[in-house]
Amino acid sequence: MVKTRDRILTATADLLRRKGYNGTGLKEIVKASEAPFGSIYHHFPGGKEELGAEAIRLAGRTYNALIQLFFENATDAEAATKAFFEGAAEVLKVTDYEDACPIATVALEVASVSEPMRIASGDVFESWIADVERDFEALGMDASKTRDVAVQLLMLIEGAFLLCRSWKDTKPMEVAGRAAAEAVRNALTD
Amino acid sequence: MVKTRDRILTATADLLRRKGYNGTGLKEIVKASEAPFGSIYHHFPGGKEELGAEAIRLAGRTYNALIQLFFENATDAEAATKAFFEGAAEVLKVTDYEDACPIATVALEVASVSEPMRIASGDVFESWIADVERDFEALGMDASKTRDVAVQLLMLIEGAFLLCRSWKDTKPMEVAGRAAAEAVRNALTD
Repeated sequence: MVKTRDRILTATADLLRRKGYNGTGLKEIVKASEAPFGSIYHHFPGGKEELGAEAIRLAGRTYNALIQLFFENATDAEAATKAFFEGAAEVLKVTDYEDACPIATVALEVASVSEPMRIASGDVFESWIADVERDFEALGMDASKTRDVAVQLLMLIEGAFLLCRSWKDTKPMEVAGRAAAEAVRNALTD
Repeated sequence: MVKTRDRILTATADLLRRKGYNGTGLKEIVKASEAPFGSIYHHFPGGKEELGAEAIRLAGRTYNALIQLFFENATDAEAATKAFFEGAAEVLKVTDYEDACPIATVALEVASVSEPMRIASGDVFESWIADVERDFEALGMDASKTRDVAVQLLMLIEGAFLLCRSWKDTKPMEVAGRAAAEAVRNALTD
């Protein structure tokens, strides 16, 4: 049986991804996690903000596992990058442009109003980038170049998610994928 | 004297930029615009959603004027691009990472829940890109290349805003600026 705390976290992460932080109420979290109302404050004495920060970290770990499916056992960094952006475009299409970055909406909402949640978002982005850096280095990229390329890859996909969702069109993801693949290729060959 | 409708729109655009759509209440808008409550529904019969869409468009026009300060009368597309990203980094620093894209938070919040606001966001991004495309072409870039470069520039700055705000660090904006400038240079010389 899934523990109450885990059910609350999973439900919150899902709601934050779809509705953002301000769009998600505690009552909705209670309902979605089938938990008694009091259990939220029992497991998260800091209330919605503490729960939000933990849910951001959980969503970050889950999405990192997805990213690593593309990069961890890859044999070619450029091909892996192309496949990653193609995968993101495909998911956008089959979910009617709903499934994108699980934490970007929340990260922008909280950046200037909640330090615990801003730091959780920042840690998640850092973890994604650090793992992709490690993958790129394993695939032959010079260690002095992995950071900028991984940061660029993340900025491109986040910007593409924003444009693709606003336009209901995957073209920006294609442009982003080509740019990211070129950055990877240049870093491998320069 | 500024008309009531304009005061409501300006106040709403400012609140949406800082607090997002779900974080902004109608009562707050009434207070910030010093307008009688009933005047919101008088001027915006569609309520918060109609007001939100109009405010997104107003914020888009204002920010486009700022973007055009860098590109419209430039003599060198690559130098203009560098200056634009340096300017964005400077604004982030002096506003403690609060002033970034005026509509990105709202655009992500509404993408899957409000068609009028999603379309308003999409139209704003399109208008920014179209004007930068026109500027790039005037500065000698082949018309077949302006679209991808302008889209890439916007994705990079939006991704950089997200990382810079989450980390309270302008390094991602430096990486984004270098990548955008390189894309511009390549499009001018290839």
